[in-house]
Amino acid sequence: MYIKKQRLLTPGPTPLLPQAMHAMMGADIHHRTADFRKLYKQVLADLQFVMGTKNDVLVLVASGSGALEAAAANFLSPGDHVLICSAGKFGERFIEIAKAWGLKATVLTAEYGGAVAPEVVERALAEHPDLKAVMVQASETSTGSMHDIRRMGLAVKQTKALMIVDAITGLGTMPLEIDEWGLDVVAGGSQKAFMIPPGVAFLSISPKAWEAGRSAQLPRFYFDLRKELKNAVNGESAWTPSIAILLALAEALIYVKELGMDKLIANAEFLAQATRKAVTALGLELFSSSPGNSVTAIKAPPGMDSGVIVKEFRTRFGSIITNGQGSMQGQIFRIAHLGYFDISDCFMLIAQLELILAANGYPVQFGRGVAAAQEAYAAVAIAPGAVLV
Amino acid sequence: MYIKKQRLLTPGPTPLLPQAMHAMMGADIHHRTADFRKLYKQVLADLQFVMGTKNDVLVLVASGSGALEAAAANFLSPGDHVLICSAGKFGERFIEIAKAWGLKATVLTAEYGGAVAPEVVERALAEHPDLKAVMVQASETSTGSMHDIRRMGLAVKQTKALMIVDAITGLGTMPLEIDEWGLDVVAGGSQKAFMIPPGVAFLSISPKAWEAGRSAQLPRFYFDLRKELKNAVNGESAWTPSIAILLALAEALIYVKELGMDKLIANAEFLAQATRKAVTALGLELFSSSPGNSVTAIKAPPGMDSGVIVKEFRTRFGSIITNGQGSMQGQIFRIAHLGYFDISDCFMLIAQLELILAANGYPVQFGRGVAAAQEAYAAVAIAPGAVLV
Repeated sequence: MYIKKQRLLTPGPTPLLPQAMHAMMGADIHHRTADFRKLYKQVLADLQFVMGTKNDVLVLVASGSGALEAAAANFLSPGDHVLICSAGKFGERFIEIAKAWGLKATVLTAEYGGAVAPEVVERALAEHPDLKAVMVQASETSTGSMHDIRRMGLAVKQTKALMIVDAITGLGTMPLEIDEWGLDVVAGGSQKAFMIPPGVAFLSISPKAWEAGRSAQLPRFYFDLRKELKNAVNGESAWTPSIAILLALAEALIYVKELGMDKLIANAEFLAQATRKAVTALGLELFSSSPGNSVTAIKAPPGMDSGVIVKEFRTRFGSIITNGQGSMQGQIFRIAHLGYFDISDCFMLIAQLELILAANGYPVQFGRGVAAAQEAYAAVAIAPGAVLV
Repeated sequence: MYIKKQRLLTPGPTPLLPQAMHAMMGADIHHRTADFRKLYKQVLADLQFVMGTKNDVLVLVASGSGALEAAAANFLSPGDHVLICSAGKFGERFIEIAKAWGLKATVLTAEYGGAVAPEVVERALAEHPDLKAVMVQASETSTGSMHDIRRMGLAVKQTKALMIVDAITGLGTMPLEIDEWGLDVVAGGSQKAFMIPPGVAFLSISPKAWEAGRSAQLPRFYFDLRKELKNAVNGESAWTPSIAILLALAEALIYVKELGMDKLIANAEFLAQATRKAVTALGLELFSSSPGNSVTAIKAPPGMDSGVIVKEFRTRFGSIITNGQGSMQGQIFRIAHLGYFDISDCFMLIAQLELILAANGYPVQFGRGVAAAQEAYAAVAIAPGAVLV
């Protein structure tokens, strides 16, 4: 009642891994030293390992949006024709980047809550042989939808175009076979499934992308990835690195390596399933027709503003979850599953949700949504023969 | 499934207040400086404020047991007759202390799960006019029982005996009117309702106790409270203080002062009620016939070892709760409410408990216990007119 713990449960920043937070206190090292070079090399190697790629992986002091800009600026030239799959606010960000950098964009739009079908991408690739890149979100955080990156990537692989993937909430929540599927540039961020605060982003870059970059004419300085690569080989960053965040990332990567990237993905997948079962048991509707594992977008009941639900999560219980963005604001609320989330977070959030709905006049049988999540747990984690009545 | 957050949810160490933990990083100050003296004076003043007493309050670098020993060693002489109320493992600790220090103890024993009735204490006081002290737990952490400290204190106040209260889990979970009820020595510890790690204990000492101390003959050196008082007046500790823990305590005291000690108690009381409703809705039995608010002791279902329940809380969900102590081990498990606990912890623990019971063959309707806790919340926190079906 009187004590409400603040619990950060959004799709980014996500809940923080305690040992990663503690590691940040060791930031009193200088970045042009052997200590730092060892740390940096380890982070780059571990990132490459957990991303499951042989491609180069580079880290930038930037948010994910910076990494997306770097993905355009390093491999394209003014007027280049790019295909953008847009299914939400982050798809629209690619459109803004293309506009800012003078790229010619063909946009494949899915309505909010939907996803761009891979066959539409295949058709566009056939129609536009001049395409230099395809840009797409693996997971569209604003709607909770995911794209069929495998099929899109394999199609783009057959062409000269680069496959540029915003995997900022996709990494660690869905399988992404970077090398096999031909994902040339894949962007990730520290504050997502990597369980640490915002501050650094990273990119994997394929040989095909580096080759395209040789003739790319867009201007670049801070985000010059070739300069970063040259330094990274020696365990250095081109510019002053975010030391505390890198220390946290190193700890988080130890955790993720020990857990296994497949288990991290399976964890998000399980929590997404349990959450979908719980909210549908309460009679609520999912927003996405192609729901991914990073975040579940849920429609507010008719006549209820989702902002009220989000606000009451905070004011009644201290839980920080997210509203819809842009025109989806007020219509949906979003429960995240990426990174350091567990089934107990789910039990708690659903119990809170039931009370919030009841407090706002929506008929709820207490415990019904929680029971659906518990059944999802029991179905996989309680041995046969146990008495479940 | 794969990710299990470790959640420390025991009756001590209790869950840690984040801002108090962060404050510990400022421990690079020396204790014979103005910075430290300011900190120490503030901590002592705030402790006195939240304990609601005009008595002196002193801090020791010790666990709660150290404070209990200091309470005996500073105010009593060899062979002094003391009355000990023992209703569990911590009552037995008083008996051990009396033995170690050569005191003559009359013991009033309640069976585990019970409490010593105040009238029994009143009778003993009348029978033994030579009593120099009465020693009692406000809250007996091992069984979840509480004593009627008000009535006992008022009775002892009429005599020459000192009222020595182990309030280690009592402070912040039940009203303790130290001055009005004549509680001469009251011991508390950092790792309880004060939401920080173990490392310091504290004592309030009445003028009556100081007076008795003048002729007290038990030997003392490290725990010499008069030496501590002399130093405390100047913002210093007699011995090297636990600087990091004091920094944490200072932050925690800011939080408790802002919240209000009455609200901290009401919070524990509400959580204890909600937990009792939830576990009884699941058909489980409470262990204590005089349940307090610091911790709820619950009997394992017949044929089930409570150790299995405690273990599965940890292995299945990462939640650290406690087994019974001594002969109660295997019979009961204990869910705590003191300090930095909230209703969401309760929802989560009950959902976990339901699954653990089901996994071990106890018939459970999922969500039933959670619903009982939700109803406890709704009864006080959802406005009339809300639709609860």
